[in-house]
Formats: sequence, C-alpha cells, structure tokens
Amino acid sequence: MSQTIKIGFFGCGNVGSGVWKLLTGFAREITHRTGLQFEVKRVLVHDLQKKREIDFPAGTLTDSVDDLLNDDEISIILEFLGGEEPAHAWDMAALQHGKTLVTANKVAFDLHWHELQKAAKENGVGLYYEAAVCGAIPIIHTIEDSLQANRISYLYGIVNGTTNYILSRMSKEGLDYEAALREAQELGLAEPDPSSDVEGLDAAYKLSILASLAFHGRVPFEYVYVEGITQVKAEDIRCGQEMGYTLKLLAIAKRDGLRVETRVHPTFIRNDHPMANVSGSFNAVFLKGHACGEMMFMGRGAGDMPTASAIVSDLVRAASTQKHCYPTFSNELYPAARLESNTDWQSAFYVRMLAEDQPGVLSKVAQTFADHGVSIAAMQQKGEKLNGRVTVVLITHKAGEKDMQQAVREIDPGTAAVESLLRVEKE
Amino acid sequence: MSQTIKIGFFGCGNVGSGVWKLLTGFAREITHRTGLQFEVKRVLVHDLQKKREIDFPAGTLTDSVDDLLNDDEISIILEFLGGEEPAHAWDMAALQHGKTLVTANKVAFDLHWHELQKAAKENGVGLYYEAAVCGAIPIIHTIEDSLQANRISYLYGIVNGTTNYILSRMSKEGLDYEAALREAQELGLAEPDPSSDVEGLDAAYKLSILASLAFHGRVPFEYVYVEGITQVKAEDIRCGQEMGYTLKLLAIAKRDGLRVETRVHPTFIRNDHPMANVSGSFNAVFLKGHACGEMMFMGRGAGDMPTASAIVSDLVRAASTQKHCYPTFSNELYPAARLESNTDWQSAFYVRMLAEDQPGVLSKVAQTFADHGVSIAAMQQKGEKLNGRVTVVLITHKAGEKDMQQAVREIDPGTAAVESLLRVEKE
Repeated sequence: MSQTIKIGFFGCGNVGSGVWKLLTGFAREITHRTGLQFEVKRVLVHDLQKKREIDFPAGTLTDSVDDLLNDDEISIILEFLGGEEPAHAWDMAALQHGKTLVTANKVAFDLHWHELQKAAKENGVGLYYEAAVCGAIPIIHTIEDSLQANRISYLYGIVNGTTNYILSRMSKEGLDYEAALREAQELGLAEPDPSSDVEGLDAAYKLSILASLAFHGRVPFEYVYVEGITQVKAEDIRCGQEMGYTLKLLAIAKRDGLRVETRVHPTFIRNDHPMANVSGSFNAVFLKGHACGEMMFMGRGAGDMPTASAIVSDLVRAASTQKHCYPTFSNELYPAARLESNTDWQSAFYVRMLAEDQPGVLSKVAQTFADHGVSIAAMQQKGEKLNGRVTVVLITHKAGEKDMQQAVREIDPGTAAVESLLRVEKE
Repeated sequence: MSQTIKIGFFGCGNVGSGVWKLLTGFAREITHRTGLQFEVKRVLVHDLQKKREIDFPAGTLTDSVDDLLNDDEISIILEFLGGEEPAHAWDMAALQHGKTLVTANKVAFDLHWHELQKAAKENGVGLYYEAAVCGAIPIIHTIEDSLQANRISYLYGIVNGTTNYILSRMSKEGLDYEAALREAQELGLAEPDPSSDVEGLDAAYKLSILASLAFHGRVPFEYVYVEGITQVKAEDIRCGQEMGYTLKLLAIAKRDGLRVETRVHPTFIRNDHPMANVSGSFNAVFLKGHACGEMMFMGRGAGDMPTASAIVSDLVRAASTQKHCYPTFSNELYPAARLESNTDWQSAFYVRMLAEDQPGVLSKVAQTFADHGVSIAAMQQKGEKLNGRVTVVLITHKAGEKDMQQAVREIDPGTAAVESLLRVEKE
C-alpha cells in the first residue's frame, strides 16, 4: 500500500523540470523503495503562455501563488525560484500555511534561515535544503545525520562548478581567464552575466550554510570574506604547478573555539591532495571531524538531474518522517556564546614578483618578510629576463594574513614588484 | 528534556572502546544535538579478568550473553565481535529478544543478512550496519537515504585500508610487497595474519553489501570474484605509472539489466581519476547514478574513532526513528527476476611481457590478441635487455575477460613470456 502525497512547485525552470522528469520517469522505483507516491498538483510559473518542454496536465500551471497556498491538499512545496525575493516571501507564506518547504534556493534560505526555521517550527512543518548546496552531494544530510558525534574543526569546499571548470581549463590547457570563461559560457556552464559565480558570491552563500551546520553555530553570509577568480592569471597557475600546487576556488571554514574564519578565494593546494583531482564542473567538500578524521564528498554541484536527485531525496525524507528535525546551534548550548568572525587568519602564501636581477634584492625582500614574521618555505627564480627583471616565485610558511599584506606593501616596487599574492592551503 | 536510552555492547575491543569514549567524552554535545542520552548498561566480554583501558562502572561487564538478552531495559545492542560465529547466533538472539541491532560486523551481517532482516522485521526492531562498510564514510546512509531516486549503474570502492596503504607505499616509495606489508604490520595497519585483507576477502564482503544496496537486489558474497594483492610486483606499479596509471585494489560492481558483475582485484586507474589520490589507509567509494551522475565519498575506513563515529550515527538514528526501515530488493518489485552473476565481464588490460628482441615477435603477439578480439591501445618497449629479452608493456582496449585469458595462454612463452596481467578501469 503506498500513500499519495500532493505537492506544489514554486517555479519550473531547469531544476523544476528535472524534478518533474525524475518523479514521473522513475515513479515506480521511488514508490517501490519508499512506499510513497507523489503527485505534482500545482506548478507556479511567471508566464502561463511560455512554451515548455513538459506537457503538464491541464490545470497544473498557475501564475497565482494563492492557488498553492490555499490548496489544503498540497502538503509540501518545492522551491526552485532562486534569488531573494519574491522567493523568501513566498517560502514564508508556504510555511505559515502549514506546508513543508523543500528548497534549492541558497540565497533566500541563507539570508532568512532563522526566520524560516522559526516559522517551520511554529507551524510543525519541515524545512529541507539539501539541494541548496552542492547539487547531488548529500553534504547536508551527512553533516546532520551521519556526523552528529563529531566536532568538525574545518571544511574546504569546491562549491562552485563554473569557477572550477574555468580554473581546470586554465590549468590543463593553459587558457587565460577570458578564454576559459567564454568556453564555459558557450557550454552553458556559465551565465551570460557570470558575476555571482566568478566573483565568489555563490560560493560564499554555500559556505555560510555549510559552516553553520558544521560548527553548530550560525555563520552569517556577512562573515564570509570573498575574493573571486577574475584576477587569476594563467602564469600563476603555471608557476604553482611547477612547485607542485593546483589552484582552486576554495570555500574555507575553520573553527578555533568560538572563533571562526570563513573565506572564499583562489587557493593553491598540493597536487596530491584529493581535492586537486576534483576537476571540471565537479564540486567537493573536504572536512575533518575529531572522531571521523578527514573525509571528502565529491559530485555534481549543479545541473537539472543532479539537483533533482537531491530534491527528491529531501522530498522522501519530508514525506516519510514522523517528526521534522531542525539544526541546533551552539549558542543554545552555551547561551552566552556566539561565534565570532576571525579575519586575521593564518595561511601560507604564494608570491610572484618581478625583481631586479642584482645582488642583494632577494635578501632585502626576504628581510621585509622576516620583519613581519613571514618565513619562506620555497623559492624559485626563472632564468628568462624581462626588461632586466627576473620572475621570482616563493611559497611561505604559515603567517598572519594582515602581516603578509603589510609585508607586501612594504616591498619596494623599484627593486621587486609583487605581481600576484595567493593563499596556499597545506593541511 | 532528553530521553535516556539504555544500550548493551557485544564485545569491547578497539571499536567498542572507541564508542565508549565517544559516548562518554562527547555526551553533552550528542544530547544537545539529538535530544538523546545514552547509557551503556552491560558490556559482554570474553574474559572478565582481562586488564582494560576503560574503567567500567561496577556491574557493567559480564561474560554471559543472557545478561543482555534478558535485560528488558536494554533496547539497543551494538555488536563489535567480528567473524561469523558466535556473532551471528547472538545477533539473532538479540533481535528475537526485541532489541535493535547496530552492527560493525560485515561478515556475520553479509552472510546472514536475509535472516537478520527477517527477524528484525518480525520483532519490529531496527537493523543498522553503517559501520560494517568503510568505517566513517556514510556510504550506507547515502545510498539508502540520499540516492533513492537513482538507478546506480556501477560503483568502485577502495574499501580496504590495509591494502591501500601497502599499494600506496609501493607506488610512492618503490617498496616491494613484502617490505610494504611488514611496514603496515609494524604500524598496526595490518594484522599478524593479514590474509583476509591482502587476499581481498574483507573487500569482497563489503562489496557484497554495497552492491546489494546500490542495485536494490541481493548480491551474495559468492558472486564476488576475488583476487588479492599478494602477487603484485613493484615493477608493474612502476610500469603502470610511466603509462599514466595508478594501481589500486578496487572492489568493482557493475549492473546491466539483471546481470551484475562484482569483482575485487588489483586494478589500474588513470592518475587523474579522483580515486588515484585516495592514498594511505583511506577508503573511498565512487559511483554513478542516472540522476546524480558520478560521485565519490572518501574517508577513514577503519580505526577506533572513525568506526565509532559511524556506530554512534546509527545509534542516534535507531533511537530517534519512529519506524525502522529495511532495504527493499528488486526481486520483490519484479517477482520473477533475480540478479545474475556475470563472470565474463569487459575490461581493459595491462600486460607485461619479456619478449625476444627479434623482428616479428611483437606482430605475432598482437596477432594472437587480435584473434581473440583484443585490440591494443598503447604499447611501450623498454631499452634495457635482460637475457636477450626486452620488457614490453601494453594496455588494451576493452575486451572480454575470458577472451583475454585465452589469448594470454596462446602466446608462445618461447618468444614472449607474459609476466603480469592486470585489469585497467578506464571509465
């Protein structure tokens, strides 16, 4: 005996169409495996006249949100709208109308998490968001349901497929940023306006959600330092490779007591690190817990069917649970405590300079670093001269971010011009 | 308000001690996050007099299984015994006494899955086994609860940490098998009698469990073809590396309709495959679903605390669910159907030969392969002669296993002696 659950869609673009296809095309298996049957009763769209790939049954489409909110048969809403408004307002309305919400919208969810969770609790309904982060990768389920007995000290994510594709092409084919971006756009992996991806904002929203769950304390979007990949130069990728490193846009979250650092920026990692082989549009999250040790989860972070896979798993969870769960944050356990944002983190660095080829120049540079507590782990000088200067690349040991920035400012560009400064993750 | 759940341990070795430490040392956080409190009421051990690291409260230890079975306060038993008997008999008794079972014992579970699941269902109790496969990696939870809407076509696992450590050391340091094994034994990563690990049996049990869940059809242990790493030569690892491949002991499961192939053997994978960077004692599972696409999950496959992390996550799940779930197998959906074992799979191959350095020898070898439908994708001949012979290494395109075996038998050892035949996974 299977039970039929009536659901509604907010939006029906790429991901919504994927969910429809999965729920219809794989219905028999889903019912067999879960004992549940799903019927998509209403789909909210902006334009009823738009030509669509899917031939919805008559009466399914509507352009009025009230048709879903006021339909008492609909118990679960899936949201695929994206962006903050009107998604947030409609999500709130759905919860207040006693409907469980399954959302793929990281922006509306992350910016209004507290309010949404409060509304869900008050109305005794569920709030599910696996698909909001890293597409098909069950990273939310894993942190929530499989790593409960762990104090997670850090996590690194490759959480944006567009930028990972661009950096992979720059690494493997030696393309420059503009050429790799154009290629990604032609393949539909980057938007015509790619700014949210390439400037790191998309990754920052995801990091805010992941860090909050991993650290059991709310890490708002504003805590995340963000630097995108628009300034990345093919030459730095090449120089890094020669020294054994691969460049990735990493979303990094580390916790030390109640201090957290959360940052999104291009980062070199060792070529033999498991994240270094996460190429193309793949996503991955690497983390360390005090009991589980180091783990990594890799998969498709976007695309209609991978995201649909996550949505349907949340849908099954929402429909089969007797008691919805909500994450608990540590400020409830330690009422006086609050996670603080640490912006002066420790990191190793990569520096590329064009230096005068004269005795004493490098020792002066090294002295400036030493004055700020920065010590050098590896240095490479290239033979070829350019306008009387040579390229010098160095990797530092761990140093404070602010000390490093100050040291770089003090290096005299008359003898050594710092062309690039990038962070290196060695753990 | 938190609820106290009384539990019992069958066994208390390495993993049991880890669970005790985690449940006591991390108790406050576990209770805060889950609303549950756990009390270990009785611990079944073989020898009451043995000196133990943990100072159990008086009356906790017992050497009588009945003290746990007949204690109505104990609702959940955690099993860390290992091996088939008496674990299986006691596990059955626990279920029949109405106790939920959380087991880390892959052997007893895999060999008696059907019987254990039947007993669990009949007694309305749960059966949880995340810790039986790949330690801390939540691969069971993921397949069961996050990939329900996927038809999984294949999975590859590095599911044995001992052999992965040995192969990693052979690859990175050029050690031979015996030296790497000795090192693993000195580090406690291999048993004094390492046969179950190095001969691939441990991996085969895990593959039987993973394939059954992934394919929603029972794949018994007997279906798994097993070949260990005891015959692996450092020279083959080196030759493979030169051609861009890394050697791993892969547990491979592929499905094509109702035919499945399940096999554990040393396997070359491309150096840029995400599994190639899974080194040392790490485990990983790589899989492909029709909606989610390719995914990989990496982590610690053994050790007290990583396994304890998985056990406690199952314990929380067992204690907080209102309705225990059991996997459904497709022979229930298709009553007449049954998964069949396919032993004549398709694979690419690596062959190393010592061949006479004379005109015509290689063309004869290639002809023998061609006669059996095996075509050659890459060939490398080494300069140095040994007793008038040269080393020739070749990689084939995909061919049938049996055709390949036959071709190798027909190569005349008088002109070309086949020293090694290994499989190559190119997907």
